[in-house]
Amino acid sequence: MAHSTITSSSLDQNEDPNCAGQQQPYSTITSSSSSLDQQKNDDPGCAGQHPPVSPISLDKGDPMIFEEYWERMGDKCDLRIGGGDLMSYLSNPGGVCWFLLPQLEESIRRIHSLVGNAATQGRYIVVGTGSSQLVQTVLYALSSDSPHPLSVVCAPPYYSCYPELAGILKSELYKWEGDAHTFNKDGPFLELVTSPNNPDGSIRGPVVRPRAGGHVMYDLAYYWPQFTPITHQADHDIMIFTFSKSVGHAGSRIGWAIVKNKEIAIKMVKLIEVLSIGVSKEAQLRATKILGAICDGYEGSLAMPESDKFFDYFRRIMAERWNKLREVVKKNQVFSLPEYQQEQCLFSEGLAGTHPGFAWLKCEKGESKDDAEGFLKGYGIQARGGHKFGVDGSFVRVSMMSRENTFKAFLERLSAIEAGRDSTYKMDVA
Amino acid sequence: MAHSTITSSSLDQNEDPNCAGQQQPYSTITSSSSSLDQQKNDDPGCAGQHPPVSPISLDKGDPMIFEEYWERMGDKCDLRIGGGDLMSYLSNPGGVCWFLLPQLEESIRRIHSLVGNAATQGRYIVVGTGSSQLVQTVLYALSSDSPHPLSVVCAPPYYSCYPELAGILKSELYKWEGDAHTFNKDGPFLELVTSPNNPDGSIRGPVVRPRAGGHVMYDLAYYWPQFTPITHQADHDIMIFTFSKSVGHAGSRIGWAIVKNKEIAIKMVKLIEVLSIGVSKEAQLRATKILGAICDGYEGSLAMPESDKFFDYFRRIMAERWNKLREVVKKNQVFSLPEYQQEQCLFSEGLAGTHPGFAWLKCEKGESKDDAEGFLKGYGIQARGGHKFGVDGSFVRVSMMSRENTFKAFLERLSAIEAGRDSTYKMDVA
Repeated sequence: MAHSTITSSSLDQNEDPNCAGQQQPYSTITSSSSSLDQQKNDDPGCAGQHPPVSPISLDKGDPMIFEEYWERMGDKCDLRIGGGDLMSYLSNPGGVCWFLLPQLEESIRRIHSLVGNAATQGRYIVVGTGSSQLVQTVLYALSSDSPHPLSVVCAPPYYSCYPELAGILKSELYKWEGDAHTFNKDGPFLELVTSPNNPDGSIRGPVVRPRAGGHVMYDLAYYWPQFTPITHQADHDIMIFTFSKSVGHAGSRIGWAIVKNKEIAIKMVKLIEVLSIGVSKEAQLRATKILGAICDGYEGSLAMPESDKFFDYFRRIMAERWNKLREVVKKNQVFSLPEYQQEQCLFSEGLAGTHPGFAWLKCEKGESKDDAEGFLKGYGIQARGGHKFGVDGSFVRVSMMSRENTFKAFLERLSAIEAGRDSTYKMDVA
Repeated sequence: MAHSTITSSSLDQNEDPNCAGQQQPYSTITSSSSSLDQQKNDDPGCAGQHPPVSPISLDKGDPMIFEEYWERMGDKCDLRIGGGDLMSYLSNPGGVCWFLLPQLEESIRRIHSLVGNAATQGRYIVVGTGSSQLVQTVLYALSSDSPHPLSVVCAPPYYSCYPELAGILKSELYKWEGDAHTFNKDGPFLELVTSPNNPDGSIRGPVVRPRAGGHVMYDLAYYWPQFTPITHQADHDIMIFTFSKSVGHAGSRIGWAIVKNKEIAIKMVKLIEVLSIGVSKEAQLRATKILGAICDGYEGSLAMPESDKFFDYFRRIMAERWNKLREVVKKNQVFSLPEYQQEQCLFSEGLAGTHPGFAWLKCEKGESKDDAEGFLKGYGIQARGGHKFGVDGSFVRVSMMSRENTFKAFLERLSAIEAGRDSTYKMDVA
């Protein structure tokens, strides 16, 4: 097991650190996903060992929880690409989205049909380099022909990357205007609605009163059975999804939009054409294979036992993690968590619970009450504070999608907070 | 063989049409690269057959010329990706470019070392979703901390996508200012230098007088032995390359920048982080494999016979195509082509010729002299007119990188222009 020097990039995207059981100080190791790129990191949790400890990075939503499942699938999901395959820029020259592989489009329609979470019939599918690129294309598509800049708003707590996505290039076409609740400007606007919401898992609708020039984009990254009951088939003008959260393959950078209006879809495609001349075909082919394997697990001759089917399996895993987290939170009496109601799920045809990909903790007590991120950091847990989501610092977002051992280490460290302010962790984080 | 309806997307990116030998009218078929996505199109050229003919699309530089080579490589270049591989966002958390696979970085350094076309030692490598994304990141990196917008200029004829890349989002950070020769504004500027130049194959340097706040970005997409002699090891502050033109895999969307200044590299990475949270790992792994295979062909136990080595093979093919084109152009007396001198090539250690990826034709005669694009269109050849490159319409750019049969069909149609204004093609293009 390698121990590398900590060199936090500008982004602090570390994930899956190794853990204690060592006597000397050492730094965060960020393991990657695969034997193809770097060593795996399966070190056990480290509570009860001797400090100093390395921080556990749970500030980013790297969905490594899904890795062990896909490894177990074996040959079924192997992808083979020959040297001369996939060489052209073009995938579907006759289609609105000329760089979308037709077989990926088919897999996307198939999985939405299986899950029942979004209407695709008669809609245009636009593939993007992750859903971030798609958000940018939506901003462009809704603003490029307008004489007035598009105001971009979202109700807090909102996904921490939206303000930067809308603002980083200082476009004259659109402008981040922050809180949708207090928005009262004239002119065209776009409200971003993430549902279930990142960071807090709540089910959401728009809050700005509809009017001419008003648009809504639904970011449905987490509207999948492992996270939430599928209560209805979403059918909005613009909906975006991402491969990383639906299925776990964040490294592929694949997202897709489902778009009703052809002109909007054409403009989205236009921006991707200019900015990246399409989307990697290898990644598209991978997504085709993986989405297809999930559907095969539910349908026809390849159907799997109930407990192994992708969404059922991860609904169970997520529920177990949430139960464990709620126990610790209840016991240590420092934090609170949102409560979610069970609801009828159209996908599983029964009551189902909500188990978001992130825990949205509120620090209720203590001197560090207004700096929950700093507080957790003192206990060796890197998380993302409320300010980045447009709310106060008593909130903090923690990923629930890490590898199992990282999750265990997180719970153990969180438990330690309760233990009479034991400074074991607090004082000696490397 | 399928005959599809023509549906030109907004971009007109068609390539590799099928050809005549049929009696009924039919439309452009745009074949894609692989059995993995669509049918192949190997129809022979169609001169001497009965019209109407479908247009041959040579307006875009889809590098399908390389396909047959990579198909012949067989298992050597096969890529296998397991279901659980490459799942994390992260590739190299300790590196400046945290999403760059370390093995791709190694392959990039290795191929530049083999070819000798660019210095990489002590430089930062930044991977992008094609080189288009990298151009955008350079604009951002050089402008984000400046109180004044960055003027972006290039000497015509310039790559037709630059104006749109710099202008489409109406950023307040940078502004397309057109012709570098006539540029005389104060304030920071970036001159884009493409060398060998797209569209005309010329070797270029900057034309704006250096001053404080002045930057140069070298787009070296075509600085590879198949296109031009390698006369020196390029060693500029910012150099970008693309997988699509160096090697042929346009569908992968992989480009890379070689950057001297760490702060600039960090800002470039930052923009890619915000806009697409990295670059597809499957595509990166593919690029690793393919670049590695080329190097292996030159070095060590896997070295190939001279004539099969990638750069030698394609230098010969490109030379053959250029010889054939020059013959036709000479014979029909309508167009002229740039002339290139032979030069000492450091890579092949001898004199080598220039055989650009595009032919930059100038229409010298006839009533259509000022509309070379329209003129060729009348003969069933889709090409890109001079206006898009910042010069007059007597010029037109034609891709020399199509599949062999498409190239043959192009030559046959071009030959027909000479044949006493034979209207066979001109009148009946579908």
